[in-house]
Amino acid sequence: MTGIESLPVRDELRGKTPYGAPQLDVPVRLNTNENPYPLPEELVRRIAERVTEAARTLNRYPDRDALALREALAGYLTRTTGFSVSPAQVWAANGSNEVIQQLLQTFGGPGRTAIGFEPSYSMHGLISRGTGTGWLSGPRREDFTVDTRAAAEAIAEHRPEVVFVCSPNNPTGTAVDRETVVALYEAAQAARPSMVVVDEAYGEFSHRPSLLPLIEGRPNLVVTRTMSKAFGAAGLRLGYLAADPAVVDAVQLVRLPYHLSAVTQATALAALEHTGTLLGYVERLKGERDRLVRELRAIGCEVTESDANFVQFGRFEDAHATWQALLEHGVLVRDNGVPGRLRVTAGTPEENDAFLDAVRAVTKENPR
Amino acid sequence: MTGIESLPVRDELRGKTPYGAPQLDVPVRLNTNENPYPLPEELVRRIAERVTEAARTLNRYPDRDALALREALAGYLTRTTGFSVSPAQVWAANGSNEVIQQLLQTFGGPGRTAIGFEPSYSMHGLISRGTGTGWLSGPRREDFTVDTRAAAEAIAEHRPEVVFVCSPNNPTGTAVDRETVVALYEAAQAARPSMVVVDEAYGEFSHRPSLLPLIEGRPNLVVTRTMSKAFGAAGLRLGYLAADPAVVDAVQLVRLPYHLSAVTQATALAALEHTGTLLGYVERLKGERDRLVRELRAIGCEVTESDANFVQFGRFEDAHATWQALLEHGVLVRDNGVPGRLRVTAGTPEENDAFLDAVRAVTKENPR
Repeated sequence: MTGIESLPVRDELRGKTPYGAPQLDVPVRLNTNENPYPLPEELVRRIAERVTEAARTLNRYPDRDALALREALAGYLTRTTGFSVSPAQVWAANGSNEVIQQLLQTFGGPGRTAIGFEPSYSMHGLISRGTGTGWLSGPRREDFTVDTRAAAEAIAEHRPEVVFVCSPNNPTGTAVDRETVVALYEAAQAARPSMVVVDEAYGEFSHRPSLLPLIEGRPNLVVTRTMSKAFGAAGLRLGYLAADPAVVDAVQLVRLPYHLSAVTQATALAALEHTGTLLGYVERLKGERDRLVRELRAIGCEVTESDANFVQFGRFEDAHATWQALLEHGVLVRDNGVPGRLRVTAGTPEENDAFLDAVRAVTKENPR
Repeated sequence: MTGIESLPVRDELRGKTPYGAPQLDVPVRLNTNENPYPLPEELVRRIAERVTEAARTLNRYPDRDALALREALAGYLTRTTGFSVSPAQVWAANGSNEVIQQLLQTFGGPGRTAIGFEPSYSMHGLISRGTGTGWLSGPRREDFTVDTRAAAEAIAEHRPEVVFVCSPNNPTGTAVDRETVVALYEAAQAARPSMVVVDEAYGEFSHRPSLLPLIEGRPNLVVTRTMSKAFGAAGLRLGYLAADPAVVDAVQLVRLPYHLSAVTQATALAALEHTGTLLGYVERLKGERDRLVRELRAIGCEVTESDANFVQFGRFEDAHATWQALLEHGVLVRDNGVPGRLRVTAGTPEENDAFLDAVRAVTKENPR
């Protein structure tokens, strides 16, 4: 048996480890921003029905353009944002990671650069590197909001071809306001024609309206979404984007043909029939998220405002030691490497109680 | 609305069109090498059961490492090739296209090159370009077999980091013998440490044994497979590879986390429980493939020997005109751009009869 180091892998991969949160068997797992509510049994039955139908023609390739699914996604966006979206403006892939990869293969790649305002979703940088796109770490304020002026200056200086704006931002939970996105879009276009990707993976959990209507009149603006969080379907791997139809045409130049399986399309279509129930869970989670913020502050933690289904809290002298101590109390949260901070996903009321008890116990053991 | 040309897409994508066979509504579709036999109803039910189970925890991310699936795939390879494969030697992704993309992101990419012996599977070149890997078109003999000496010379001259060998070859149907692969592997290693990827998408249809055992003692050799053809599951998008465990570790450095959905894993596991029935269909298709070769020759066509579930036939002065004429007779075959040749998928006996009738009618109308 040989090791990776003896294989002719690309130099930049040498010594690297695969991305991914530790998958540990712990009673309370609040580390990957999953939705704690299983799909309702009625939807599970509907998935079985739709998949059975799809399985009867599984010997054939799936609809390469996923038209029915894009129509259903467009309908969902139109209903929930009040902004009319057509199927020609929507594209779907295996998780928003694959959407981002396709965008970077189309608009980034060798000789081009992408910027994000960090700390932010680390996959933006990792997928940039995976597609040969240079990665630029842009600034963020001490309070984790985006400093429009500093961000616009970074864009003007580095002239990236792709600008990522994550709202609500992962792992901080921070939303970005409309005016900031408009200003960054204008700064980006002034620097060179470039794409601005607004990552709204956690959009449904926000206190604010979606930034989706900004695609109107801005052909280089893309909004990405996922069914992993609000739809409670992390296991489905269904991400999508909304943008000018030309963007949808463009990513089809790099998408792998038939990238989206017939069972994935069938399952997603079933879930889109049940958005009422699923968005009801989102409301519950928003309530729990707000409770986490309040109670963590009552405990004495410094908590970042959150528009997502998770909360960033601290400060800890040694965040990783606190992560370990919480784990010893049976609660798995996430250490995203933000100094002094940890991230906890809003779970069920019981899970959140267990988490808060663990925080109380840990901070008592090790007063800050 | 804007057009692609106004977007800041990469220069090499300008003027390109998306890959994909025309999806036309025709009575007899023999153009994409699909398996004509729908999954047996017993298997459809088993898929529904397994997907129902997976849907109950769909709010959680799928098994990132797809361990159960890799174990089942390793068992299948071991049973059908007689060569013992462990789960650590197997990796799976959304179609063999994604497997190939991951291999190229790991071992190819900017500043590196890949070679294939053309005409061959055109996605090898397209995915190379999509990952920034330079593409080299290597030689093939007039009869579409690989000329070991000429191929080894091309490798020695260009020193590519990745060498694709497609066996049976698409679109010609040509198998590559063991000695050729060994010679090309040695030529590739002599040029520089480089990966040799043997694409066995149609391996189950071959007259010859799998080339899989060649991975023994050759850490830089990878065999790719798919469930699209022999398993009759093109709609599932499940491709996989077998290689040294270090290769499996290496592709995990570039794979998107949680790339393989829980419903895909569940469906594939169900299909792997029914390999007996599915491989029975393969035997039928091999018989039909051999019949197509015989009958096309009896009609007077020049037919390339085939080890796959399709047959390349010709010669036509204007292959595209013949393609169009067959389409007018209700039969859709594939024009892969090989001069004077077309490719027909082995369908059901009835579909193949309809195809042969159409060829007879077309060649009578336009005697060559």
